[in-house]
Amino acid sequence: MPRLHHLDPQYVHFRWDNSLSRALTIDSGDTVVFDLQENSAGQITRTSTSDAVAKLDRNRTYPLGGPIYLRDAKPGDALEVQILKLQPADWGWTAILPGFGLLSEELPGPYLVHWDLSNKPTAKGIRGAAVPIEPFCGVMGVAPDEPGSFHPTPPGKFGGNMDIRHLTASSTLRLPVWVDGALFSCGDCHSAQGDGEVCGFGIETSMRVTLRFYLRRQLRLTSAEFVTRNGLTPRTDRRGYYVTTGIRSDLMEGAREAVRQMIAHLMGAYGLSRLDAYVLCSVAVDLKVSEVVDKPNWIVSAYLPLSVMRRTG
Amino acid sequence: MPRLHHLDPQYVHFRWDNSLSRALTIDSGDTVVFDLQENSAGQITRTSTSDAVAKLDRNRTYPLGGPIYLRDAKPGDALEVQILKLQPADWGWTAILPGFGLLSEELPGPYLVHWDLSNKPTAKGIRGAAVPIEPFCGVMGVAPDEPGSFHPTPPGKFGGNMDIRHLTASSTLRLPVWVDGALFSCGDCHSAQGDGEVCGFGIETSMRVTLRFYLRRQLRLTSAEFVTRNGLTPRTDRRGYYVTTGIRSDLMEGAREAVRQMIAHLMGAYGLSRLDAYVLCSVAVDLKVSEVVDKPNWIVSAYLPLSVMRRTG
Repeated sequence: MPRLHHLDPQYVHFRWDNSLSRALTIDSGDTVVFDLQENSAGQITRTSTSDAVAKLDRNRTYPLGGPIYLRDAKPGDALEVQILKLQPADWGWTAILPGFGLLSEELPGPYLVHWDLSNKPTAKGIRGAAVPIEPFCGVMGVAPDEPGSFHPTPPGKFGGNMDIRHLTASSTLRLPVWVDGALFSCGDCHSAQGDGEVCGFGIETSMRVTLRFYLRRQLRLTSAEFVTRNGLTPRTDRRGYYVTTGIRSDLMEGAREAVRQMIAHLMGAYGLSRLDAYVLCSVAVDLKVSEVVDKPNWIVSAYLPLSVMRRTG
Repeated sequence: MPRLHHLDPQYVHFRWDNSLSRALTIDSGDTVVFDLQENSAGQITRTSTSDAVAKLDRNRTYPLGGPIYLRDAKPGDALEVQILKLQPADWGWTAILPGFGLLSEELPGPYLVHWDLSNKPTAKGIRGAAVPIEPFCGVMGVAPDEPGSFHPTPPGKFGGNMDIRHLTASSTLRLPVWVDGALFSCGDCHSAQGDGEVCGFGIETSMRVTLRFYLRRQLRLTSAEFVTRNGLTPRTDRRGYYVTTGIRSDLMEGAREAVRQMIAHLMGAYGLSRLDAYVLCSVAVDLKVSEVVDKPNWIVSAYLPLSVMRRTG
């Protein structure tokens, strides 16, 4: 008989480490409710200014709920995670953190935007913009097989900080299992984010997250895979997109250039400040790889949904 | 009074070159109908086998229609191209060409897939797959300012071979002008392509293309920009997506890994051959940059629309 668990919110860890004690043991088919704190773990609050960003202790970011031990899970199996429900709090934040982000050299910050999430379906925090609330967990992962303690920032073959915005409710994620019991944890909840997460943050939000877990034997995945039953951009398709292009011989440089051009567009057409434009790109603009074959120049394109902007640019 | 022109199909060129004689002179507001030949310029026909791919003369690919001289256009201006109508022929092809494509070292080809485009709204050519017909021009560009003659493969600040699949009918493209009259040309028409165009080709098709041109003074763009009024994936959203991830410290390697995993999935779940799976990725799977900030590992994800596959994987 599948059970419903509520993870005690005291089980929080700030590192990936396969020697951590399990917070909960579950069976295949069980459901777990997580009450997850926003990614600063209380260092940034509703009244914070950019000073709090400047002082952020990155060793106390990424409060992860878990680890969850799935009985009988063994290396070579897959942990299947059905994303049942994602319930964000009514406030969120996005920061520009010195040394972090795609354009950190030219737009270092510190800077902080607060988001009001109390008027669904959109988040308000930048004048003239209404960002669709599309919640997901930035981090879902299992313990790595390497011994030791690892900062959660980089994702890896164990999943982790993947920041894939299409892992929305009703999606199903499969993660390769590397240690007995899988040792699943999650956190870094976002109420919205563009593909790319260019300034380094989405709309960071505390969230109640309900997940169901299944053991899938011997799938031998090497990386995360998932199915989403949702359309990809249903909330923003109705008014179309403004698109800039980064044409470079390096994809990362192409991404930078596409975002630079989008920031220039948001400043010129809508009067946004440079920092607000960068934040808006991070939470609402999608980066696509348009082509990776037309040697020696590749194209990354940045897509701004026009429905996000309250007036015509 | 805006005029309607029909470009004489004899005006074809195979290089970007700002010394080419104009094929047609137009005024801002004029419309031009182009009858464009598929990208092999007749080297690949309805009866070709992979032999024709092996023998392809790349100096006779990219037959471009033009150049069109827009009266009064000067460097610093933008050429605005309204994409009015795209009418593909009823046959197309996709090739795997040795030395070309994202996975050219492990999947060199030569290989050729023919597509039947006569039963809209989908293209048939790989068993078990129905690819939505979503036509666009792979190449739209203006003459570069550098003197000389340049192969059309690499795109650049003049646009060109951008292979951006969302430049569909009712989109509006803006290209920076680099020489007097802009000297616009187009070609490389695709009836479908995924973001990335991973094997190097879309569904290559002859096409009647109707474009309207406007002169926009002194926009001083540095790269192509466009607006699309269309939803991005309306034809494929209804059944959701299967997604693989490439988590690497280099975006190009991440793209390769995501596509490798998608090929493995298409082989395992649907019984496709490795080469058919690679071709299907090129024409129907979209590459997104999921995150570019979680140092030192970035993620490129590959999205397969489940509606493309006739049965469940």
